[in-house]
Amino acid sequence: MTAPAVTVDEVNTFFASDLPFCAEMGISCVYIAPGVATVRFDYDERWTRPGGMVCGPTLMTLADAAVYVAIFTRIGIVPLAVTNELKMNFLRPAIGRDVLATATLHKIGRRVAYASVDLTEDHDPDRLVAQATSSYMLPDGFAD
Amino acid sequence: MTAPAVTVDEVNTFFASDLPFCAEMGISCVYIAPGVATVRFDYDERWTRPGGMVCGPTLMTLADAAVYVAIFTRIGIVPLAVTNELKMNFLRPAIGRDVLATATLHKIGRRVAYASVDLTEDHDPDRLVAQATSSYMLPDGFAD
Amino acid sequence: MTAPAVTVDEVNTFFASDLPFCAEMGISCVYIAPGVATVRFDYDERWTRPGGMVCGPTLMTLADAAVYVAIFTRIGIVPLAVTNELKMNFLRPAIGRDVLATATLHKIGRRVAYASVDLTEDHDPDRLVAQATSSYMLPDGFAD
Amino acid sequence: MTAPAVTVDEVNTFFASDLPFCAEMGISCVYIAPGVATVRFDYDERWTRPGGMVCGPTLMTLADAAVYVAIFTRIGIVPLAVTNELKMNFLRPAIGRDVLATATLHKIGRRVAYASVDLTEDHDPDRLVAQATSSYMLPDGFAD
Repeated sequence: MTAPAVTVDEVNTFFASDLPFCAEMGISCVYIAPGVATVRFDYDERWTRPGGMVCGPTLMTLADAAVYVAIFTRIGIVPLAVTNELKMNFLRPAIGRDVLATATLHKIGRRVAYASVDLTEDHDPDRLVAQATSSYMLPDGFAD
Repeated sequence: MTAPAVTVDEVNTFFASDLPFCAEMGISCVYIAPGVATVRFDYDERWTRPGGMVCGPTLMTLADAAVYVAIFTRIGIVPLAVTNELKMNFLRPAIGRDVLATATLHKIGRRVAYASVDLTEDHDPDRLVAQATSSYMLPDGFAD
Repeated sequence: MTAPAVTVDEVNTFFASDLPFCAEMGISCVYIAPGVATVRFDYDERWTRPGGMVCGPTLMTLADAAVYVAIFTRIGIVPLAVTNELKMNFLRPAIGRDVLATATLHKIGRRVAYASVDLTEDHDPDRLVAQATSSYMLPDGFAD
Repeated sequence: MTAPAVTVDEVNTFFASDLPFCAEMGISCVYIAPGVATVRFDYDERWTRPGGMVCGPTLMTLADAAVYVAIFTRIGIVPLAVTNELKMNFLRPAIGRDVLATATLHKIGRRVAYASVDLTEDHDPDRLVAQATSSYMLPDGFAD
């Protein structure tokens, strides 16, 4: 297995320059491996519902960012990779805690990439908060 | 057809008190009818990708809020209705413009509600930017 | 608006030659217009659950066939167009009746097509049985 | 961990009595464990597209059956558990081979169950053909 095509630092530098909502929402990359990426949401009451429940859109944002980075681990930073579709199932509330989203890339073709994402509270990796699946369209010129 | 069970003002008051991320992201309710709700994202560069493209998570947030309100139009404001799952397909970029999401409720049962959502730029209702479908779980005690 | 790129007869001839499961399951094309296609499931107890409820997989098969044909109405019969993903929400049972699936194409790009599908019992077009959304990958060489 | 609430034989007897399309399509249960179920499609040209590619609807049928059985492993055979929604992403063709679908239950609540499903060719468990996620509604009276 070769090394990932990006580093965590390169991803966070890209987030800062190109994805301003990541800073707004407290989203950063914390781990990468080939075909795998973990991003974290730093708990902040602005992105919750009453009771401190992290709101669904925050979880979807986190999942989408994780898939984006998982693609980068294979082909480098490709800003023009775009989400084709994303579906999330919400399983249990995440309350008052940082949340991790770990995307695993199952396919990266010439035109389309596909990943699934597990979301958990930072302190309890066994309690699944939500799960997402997503396909991305890649810009022209990538090889299967 | 009876009147909707809430008003636009009541929804926006609820957003202000219970969903702080709506104010953060510039999301407000602009129209309701029985089983139908439209929410608007006021364009703001913080929620974009390079080139002024409104980012996918903003569109998912908007769609989720629209479904929530479409449910309210039938059974009143029910904070504990929760998203079971949401899928969005991204069709065309929304660039530099306000975006509208209109949810249409196709089912509201005793336990589950289902809606589809059309997202368009505010100035061009015929150009579909994205489409979502979503099921919500309702708290106990609602009648079919 | 130009004429559709295929006729109902051409589609059913293609189904007979290339998609043997359509004959097995009693699925045929009954209507096309540009960007729109309706396929029908002829009720048959083999494809039901107890009580005569048409089973979910039959509805998914029907929806997938409808999207395929909706694409054909724009670019002709393209056997190598393949389903990228399909999601269906099941809303109400279809019991003891023929079922119609009508796909509406919302995007046909160079690489990806997207449609939504409404499923109803044949005798009651206002009662939605299920709804699907699906993206297809197109073979190389189609223009946006 | 307790034993599964059903046996493979009980599931296949139920398939034979209640789900006639399983016999039509060559679908049977081959493995269960608590929260996990594998069902198999016996390759048959009737359920293919040209070139021997197992058709998408067959894969969706298989995934739906696997989720149904995964629920049974926890609460016994519950015919009235119904699919709320199912999404499948198609990743690679399955050609001329038996296909396995393995569902893993991630949540079984009082009202809703959720599982993800991996589909592979029988001879190559590492090559993912498709992946599905699905939520089911449970009949009244099940405890969290």
